[in-house]
Amino acid sequence: MDRQTLIDTIRRKQSFLCVGLDPDPARMPAHLGTGPEAVLAFNRALIEATSDLAVAYKPNVAFYETLGAEGWDILQQTMEAIPEGCLRIADAKRGDIGNTATRYAQAAFEAWNADAVTVAPYMGRDSVEPFLAFEDKWTILLAATSNPGAEDFEFHGAEGGQPLWRRVLEVSSTYAGADRLMYVVGATRPDWLAEVRAVVPERFLLVPGVGAQGGTLEAVCAAGWAESLAGGLLVNVGRSLMYASGGEDFAEAAREEALRLQQAMAEELAVSR
Amino acid sequence: MDRQTLIDTIRRKQSFLCVGLDPDPARMPAHLGTGPEAVLAFNRALIEATSDLAVAYKPNVAFYETLGAEGWDILQQTMEAIPEGCLRIADAKRGDIGNTATRYAQAAFEAWNADAVTVAPYMGRDSVEPFLAFEDKWTILLAATSNPGAEDFEFHGAEGGQPLWRRVLEVSSTYAGADRLMYVVGATRPDWLAEVRAVVPERFLLVPGVGAQGGTLEAVCAAGWAESLAGGLLVNVGRSLMYASGGEDFAEAAREEALRLQQAMAEELAVSR
Repeated sequence: MDRQTLIDTIRRKQSFLCVGLDPDPARMPAHLGTGPEAVLAFNRALIEATSDLAVAYKPNVAFYETLGAEGWDILQQTMEAIPEGCLRIADAKRGDIGNTATRYAQAAFEAWNADAVTVAPYMGRDSVEPFLAFEDKWTILLAATSNPGAEDFEFHGAEGGQPLWRRVLEVSSTYAGADRLMYVVGATRPDWLAEVRAVVPERFLLVPGVGAQGGTLEAVCAAGWAESLAGGLLVNVGRSLMYASGGEDFAEAAREEALRLQQAMAEELAVSR
Repeated sequence: MDRQTLIDTIRRKQSFLCVGLDPDPARMPAHLGTGPEAVLAFNRALIEATSDLAVAYKPNVAFYETLGAEGWDILQQTMEAIPEGCLRIADAKRGDIGNTATRYAQAAFEAWNADAVTVAPYMGRDSVEPFLAFEDKWTILLAATSNPGAEDFEFHGAEGGQPLWRRVLEVSSTYAGADRLMYVVGATRPDWLAEVRAVVPERFLLVPGVGAQGGTLEAVCAAGWAESLAGGLLVNVGRSLMYASGGEDFAEAAREEALRLQQAMAEELAVSR
């Protein structure tokens, strides 16, 4: 999905909701059973219940890798279940040198058929470019994340210079344009989000941390909005939607939560800025 | 394998060779055929030909991930083929928040039965601790890598302060002791390696970049040696050993290269320092 199509999709659906698909067998509704097939049934029901309300889905690769060889197939089939017109994001946070990164990119873009993959910037340009080499695909680079440990290294250099996350934005912006490269920025610290937006006004931002992690949609939009991009935000909601109910009505409950979020997003899209 | 056993193994085998298992079907001997089963046959032959000369093996997860669901099994079977007494390192370079990192750790330590896994530090403490929570297992954190892109971010903050890699060493040293946490440091810039050794004199270092990438064993030992740890180095050699011959004699050729390296390592171990 190219950048203009993503913008148009957000305007048409009045939503910039990304649904995280991090299926934890211990928290899934008991009636689905356990094992990889139950995970697939869970994902398919969630996707079917929310695909008119979401613009993206983000399966977290770790939750499939831990299921064994079948998990690989379940991830592929989950990607297949995401309808055309929704961005399929493989949340992999891979990062390795060139010939290795190429293989991670092949797995994500060719085997799983993802439209986008999350990548860690630590090792620099030659660990990111193999992902960018895939035309019509997106690379989503970690910048300022929402977890407590983000303070350890992502702000390194701020005393007397610029924080690492800012250098990541500035240097990696030279790797590829706004039509191929976006960034992960956590929702839990809106002040960083505003700074990120000032550095990359033309880029989409994938924003996790709304819901279970404590960030709010209102604060994210106030800090990170880019009007020309229909906001330029993909707000990821995972646990609070996936586990809205632990019973047989889990898909209906997930839809209700998705609808509540979509309506709040439509209100944000209607604000004059 | 605990730290003392690793030191004893190095002294007994007179080797600190880590064999990289990054099987590229395009470069494997033609007579093995193609596909996941050929990769497993290739790995098993390499392991059998070198296991008395090596102290560790390091399958690179990307090369298995790209083989599809079967690749997951091939990785597991490759780990199984590594004899007791050799350290099994899953080179995964994972890095994600707590509940996700736990799943990556489960895949590496429980499903693949690795003794050690490489981890990227970008997201900080809570992305590393889930790996460290596994007792009797090793976490190997990226510090200063050997690829050209390392300059982009790993040295950030050096002007007027300390480079990021140094902060990674100092901060992450508080996460766990030298019996659980080691570091990846590239072989291609011995000056960094000497600085790393000065910061973490008591830690093992996994050193890729000797051979195809241009680093030399002599320079690595001169810069990174820790006498009380029998050097404290695991020197990884991948392509120059795996592809020493592209013919039916690939395993013999790999053994010759491993023997050449082991003999050079024995000489280093004999040096009075």
